[in-house]
Amino acid sequence: MFKINENYLKLQGSYLFSTIGKKVKEFTLANPDKKIIRLGIGDVTLPLADAVIKAMHHAVDEMGNKETFKGYSPDLGYEFLREAIALNDYKARGVTIALDEIFISDGAKSDSGNIGDIFDVDNKIAVCDPVYPVYVDTNVMAGRTGEFISEIGKWSNLIYMPCTKETNFAPELPKEEPDIIYLCFPNNPTGSTITKDELQKWVDYANKVGAVIIYDAAYESYISEENVPHTIYECEGAKTCAIEIRSFSKNAGFTGTRLGFTVVPKELKSGDVMLNSLWARRQGTKFNGAPYITQVAGTAVYTEEGKKQTREQIAYYMKNAKVIREGLAAAGYSVSGGINAPYIWLETPNNMTSWEFFDHLLEKVNVVGTPGSGFGPSGEGYFRLTAFGTYENSLEAIERIQKL
Amino acid sequence: MFKINENYLKLQGSYLFSTIGKKVKEFTLANPDKKIIRLGIGDVTLPLADAVIKAMHHAVDEMGNKETFKGYSPDLGYEFLREAIALNDYKARGVTIALDEIFISDGAKSDSGNIGDIFDVDNKIAVCDPVYPVYVDTNVMAGRTGEFISEIGKWSNLIYMPCTKETNFAPELPKEEPDIIYLCFPNNPTGSTITKDELQKWVDYANKVGAVIIYDAAYESYISEENVPHTIYECEGAKTCAIEIRSFSKNAGFTGTRLGFTVVPKELKSGDVMLNSLWARRQGTKFNGAPYITQVAGTAVYTEEGKKQTREQIAYYMKNAKVIREGLAAAGYSVSGGINAPYIWLETPNNMTSWEFFDHLLEKVNVVGTPGSGFGPSGEGYFRLTAFGTYENSLEAIERIQKL
Repeated sequence: MFKINENYLKLQGSYLFSTIGKKVKEFTLANPDKKIIRLGIGDVTLPLADAVIKAMHHAVDEMGNKETFKGYSPDLGYEFLREAIALNDYKARGVTIALDEIFISDGAKSDSGNIGDIFDVDNKIAVCDPVYPVYVDTNVMAGRTGEFISEIGKWSNLIYMPCTKETNFAPELPKEEPDIIYLCFPNNPTGSTITKDELQKWVDYANKVGAVIIYDAAYESYISEENVPHTIYECEGAKTCAIEIRSFSKNAGFTGTRLGFTVVPKELKSGDVMLNSLWARRQGTKFNGAPYITQVAGTAVYTEEGKKQTREQIAYYMKNAKVIREGLAAAGYSVSGGINAPYIWLETPNNMTSWEFFDHLLEKVNVVGTPGSGFGPSGEGYFRLTAFGTYENSLEAIERIQKL
Repeated sequence: MFKINENYLKLQGSYLFSTIGKKVKEFTLANPDKKIIRLGIGDVTLPLADAVIKAMHHAVDEMGNKETFKGYSPDLGYEFLREAIALNDYKARGVTIALDEIFISDGAKSDSGNIGDIFDVDNKIAVCDPVYPVYVDTNVMAGRTGEFISEIGKWSNLIYMPCTKETNFAPELPKEEPDIIYLCFPNNPTGSTITKDELQKWVDYANKVGAVIIYDAAYESYISEENVPHTIYECEGAKTCAIEIRSFSKNAGFTGTRLGFTVVPKELKSGDVMLNSLWARRQGTKFNGAPYITQVAGTAVYTEEGKKQTREQIAYYMKNAKVIREGLAAAGYSVSGGINAPYIWLETPNNMTSWEFFDHLLEKVNVVGTPGSGFGPSGEGYFRLTAFGTYENSLEAIERIQKL
């Protein structure tokens, strides 16, 4: 008799954004006349850049022609894309990453979920709290988190690193020693960042205790301040302790196009086993590469035209972030984020819980945000708005909230 | 100190096709003047059908337009694609599959690897021998297979179901009771099939012993004979024991475009837990959908034009299969497959091992095939050729082999 993975039964409710989706759907069905503004899920709204569209049309034509048709992608991804990444994302920042340390994938969600495959069940995990739910849920599924203690909303075998107003929304080095540390800067959901010196402390700590840092830099392109690192490999010693996950979703609007990559330096080892080899084996066995067309599209992001156009998109979203951030502050909300990230993090008013505020906003002003408690216990009493809507909608949402 | 998944260290050598790739690369570097014909990896060569190309261009334009831009895909995939699948792959064969039983993915390799996530480590696996290496390797990685016994080339905790000349290349019901049974028909690598009555016996057996069948039907569109089932759900009771995995790689040439789907019927349960819910949670947490453009491309395969054009592609490959099969038989080889599948399975001559024959063919006639032993111990002494090359190359390869 077959046995299921019982860890799945420990998972709490359904995936955060599915729950939000259902609530919004129900509200829409009951109130078909209301215009809902969605500043909830971190999905982009601007169309793909012209340079990307042109490149994709060209690639589609190649796929329709016998001489230029492409079958299976090379195991790590096409070299032209990995070269563009090594040059633009790393060499340009003084970091040397070899082409066989870059693994092209279908996105950061897959990679941050699948990376757990190469680690033993018996690893102590540390996460920021609040945090992108995928880090926790995938470790629950893998059996690394113990039991859920509903009284405190925490897993028994998981190290929580609170990131609240009290810690300036940055994690502090944990008292209990972790084996795997998930860090995401600029942060989802709080929109906060840490400086290069602060990140260096984490790298030194990980090297000291023999921990791996899974560094999610999906929002790197939103960094506007000077002293914020764009890649963890700007820190000395990061190659012996850190895996970096990157995405094309937020810098180039690829949420529906699907492309990302993960860097696993060859210096990162357990004894004499390179994690690079393990990840190569994982991806070579359980993944068949991102589509050729998508890899061509990703490469177009690094052309001069592509860079210019995607920078304009980011500027557009960050203008929204400014409107939301400043508008909320003017209305008396306590807000953070929105400077190096497309996320604005606010305290719920009148001691409302995060979900109470979600329902309140949805029902009263038809604005959809994301309850902070969905990202972890320390997110309770907070709420996330994203800058990925249109300028007009961001403005209208804030005006509606201001009138509330 | 972090701990790696030690199961990875048990894996034997690198992934079969990576090894072949390296051998061919070395040979090419040493012999740049030789024209190599590749009938090894099951990669297609015909360009995408016109209907698919047209649909993709349209979808690319949609992605470049603010009004029609698409962000994150719905969790299970776009309904238009799932509707086309339910109608064409199932309803047309008298099978009712609900839209929320179909999960769109980036391909059958990912799905057949990732499906293991929803099962406990403690499940006894049964595989055909020889078999698509992904089924075994992913279970090794998950720790389900025990240790590798190099003397016999087998894993200690894996049920092998030999498919050799002696069994007419079909598996027999195993003596030891399995929990999870991988079946692939039409088969990779042997190209063999079983009839609907024979498959019914497997369904009845699985229901009797409480096993799950993972049914890989990636080569379904190559079926030419009447009594061969196109989906396992043609068999009575399959919905309570079988998961079906499908691919667009071989019926529509999507190896470099990446699209597939998995059907998990809601009747398939462990106690009162639906495997459908577990897979929905797995995919919702660790996957972000196939690209919109690819899903549109897949839908075009089901249009009248798309069906006609992809049928022509299959006919082209099956003409190659005939040439290879009959050419080898004429040259005195013992061959099977190639009638309901694009694979031709042959016995190596003169008691050569599979890898000896691989080197022999590569060096003497510059033809690349796949060693049968790469698919499992019972594949030793066999060799796989695929019909996915051009007609001219298939013909030339056979002429070269005939002269050998």
